[in-house]
Amino acid sequence: MSLLVVGSVALDTVSTPFGRADDALGGSATFFSAAASLFAPVQLVGVVGDDYPLDALDFLAERGVDLDGLERARGESFRWAGEYSFDLNSRETLETRLGVFADFQPKIPEGFRDAEWVFLGNIDPVLQLDVLNQIHRPRLVACDTMNFWIEGKRAELMELLARVDLLLVNDGEARQLSGDHNLARAARWIHERGPRYVVIKKGEHGAILFTPHSVFFAPGYPLDEVFDPTGAGDAFAGGFMGHLARCGGTDDADLRRAMIYGSVMGSFAVEKFSVERFKDLTADEIEERARHFRDMTVFELPVDAGV
Amino acid sequence: MSLLVVGSVALDTVSTPFGRADDALGGSATFFSAAASLFAPVQLVGVVGDDYPLDALDFLAERGVDLDGLERARGESFRWAGEYSFDLNSRETLETRLGVFADFQPKIPEGFRDAEWVFLGNIDPVLQLDVLNQIHRPRLVACDTMNFWIEGKRAELMELLARVDLLLVNDGEARQLSGDHNLARAARWIHERGPRYVVIKKGEHGAILFTPHSVFFAPGYPLDEVFDPTGAGDAFAGGFMGHLARCGGTDDADLRRAMIYGSVMGSFAVEKFSVERFKDLTADEIEERARHFRDMTVFELPVDAGV
Repeated sequence: MSLLVVGSVALDTVSTPFGRADDALGGSATFFSAAASLFAPVQLVGVVGDDYPLDALDFLAERGVDLDGLERARGESFRWAGEYSFDLNSRETLETRLGVFADFQPKIPEGFRDAEWVFLGNIDPVLQLDVLNQIHRPRLVACDTMNFWIEGKRAELMELLARVDLLLVNDGEARQLSGDHNLARAARWIHERGPRYVVIKKGEHGAILFTPHSVFFAPGYPLDEVFDPTGAGDAFAGGFMGHLARCGGTDDADLRRAMIYGSVMGSFAVEKFSVERFKDLTADEIEERARHFRDMTVFELPVDAGV
Repeated sequence: MSLLVVGSVALDTVSTPFGRADDALGGSATFFSAAASLFAPVQLVGVVGDDYPLDALDFLAERGVDLDGLERARGESFRWAGEYSFDLNSRETLETRLGVFADFQPKIPEGFRDAEWVFLGNIDPVLQLDVLNQIHRPRLVACDTMNFWIEGKRAELMELLARVDLLLVNDGEARQLSGDHNLARAARWIHERGPRYVVIKKGEHGAILFTPHSVFFAPGYPLDEVFDPTGAGDAFAGGFMGHLARCGGTDDADLRRAMIYGSVMGSFAVEKFSVERFKDLTADEIEERARHFRDMTVFELPVDAGV
């Protein structure tokens, strides 16, 4: 059940209508690990600068995140600053300082190379490919990407897609990548480039899983208050991959449950700043919310109900 | 199982990226009836001018839509012209000519006043209230509205809300009405003003039913091609109310199925111009799509599956 994540480990300064967090834990690998480690042990590969408050990651280590692959380089950690609109539906990036992340060359520790479940967070597709070349025989490789790589490194991204099993992107990215505004067609376009599975995240509108033979919808969780949307997508990926690593399967029923656990973890992520909500989150709370997702979607047709 | 609809009967001129339809059948009562009549007999109340091609409504009469309440007034029929953006996500109204609709005073025929199921399409809330005063003892009254009335006739609309069981609006209207961008809170705000049930339609993102004790999500149907979105909301209402009239119940399971049949009919509506798709639609096709909605949403949790 070994689950490997490669991605950014950052310090985020986030402003929302509800307040502001300075130099809070952020980055795709951080959010992913905070969520996934509630399902299965996680191996993290990333880089931080010598200014990073490493003890802030103790809570991850304590719950089974192996930080042996977290490189500490001389220089400044990756910092991102952003501000959300009043309705949290859009955000403006105020500052991006790559720091040591600019020269990141992922080195997968020997002990991590047998990982069965791999999540390639949103980094340069050249590095994502490089990671794949260091892994022996993964059972399932999932990756994320973003507009910056779709635009600037399309050829490398296409090479990567041919080698991954699952692409997790948001709706805008799926449209940009495929050049098609229709999500069903966009998903098929992506399928044809490699990934058997395509997960399209739509924020408050939920997420859709396209497999070669089926479509599955997970709704957005109707929270009364979204506090900070940062990291929701990576927490989704953490719940999704964490569940697969835990259950050890990839059949249709497993993938559907993974969509629900992804949605559950994404919904918890936005309840507090940074990874705060994951620090005291319990297995019971996770299962309770998963049952709520079922309550929100279950129905019987007349033929079932004898109507 | 008598189902009454009061609304507009119009002639629409619609441009989409796929073509153009001139003076096609349109209006809320028309779309509602075309969809609902595949579930239960419908009584229609509306007005047309002396230029209306009444024989174009023959297909409705043939499938059990009672047109005794369709007034024919001297003058021009209600005409609407609009153009959709390339991705069909926004539209511009090019022309609205109210014609005889400007002086519409709904007169409910004596034989319609015992209707059990009532849908008040999007017209002036003063007229919607007037209709309610002519009905004897409906089992469930649903209504629609729009930004124009929310802005211009708020007091009358609030008076109406206190008297209806279900409000069907889109997400923008729910936000405008409640003054709250959060849909869960917006639905609660509406509940507190009268309607026990609130259905919020989100177009391609599906629809949400809020009851006092539960939330139910129906996804948007992943069509490869949306041809013309006009009337999807009224077709949704037709499937929703048609199912309730057919099954005769309003418990939680009935309302959930109604959400699915509403979604099914909304998804068929957009496959062709005007009400064209409903003309040859069969009960088997409706049930098949409803089963597809179930396939797209069903999942088991570990505790169910014994995982």
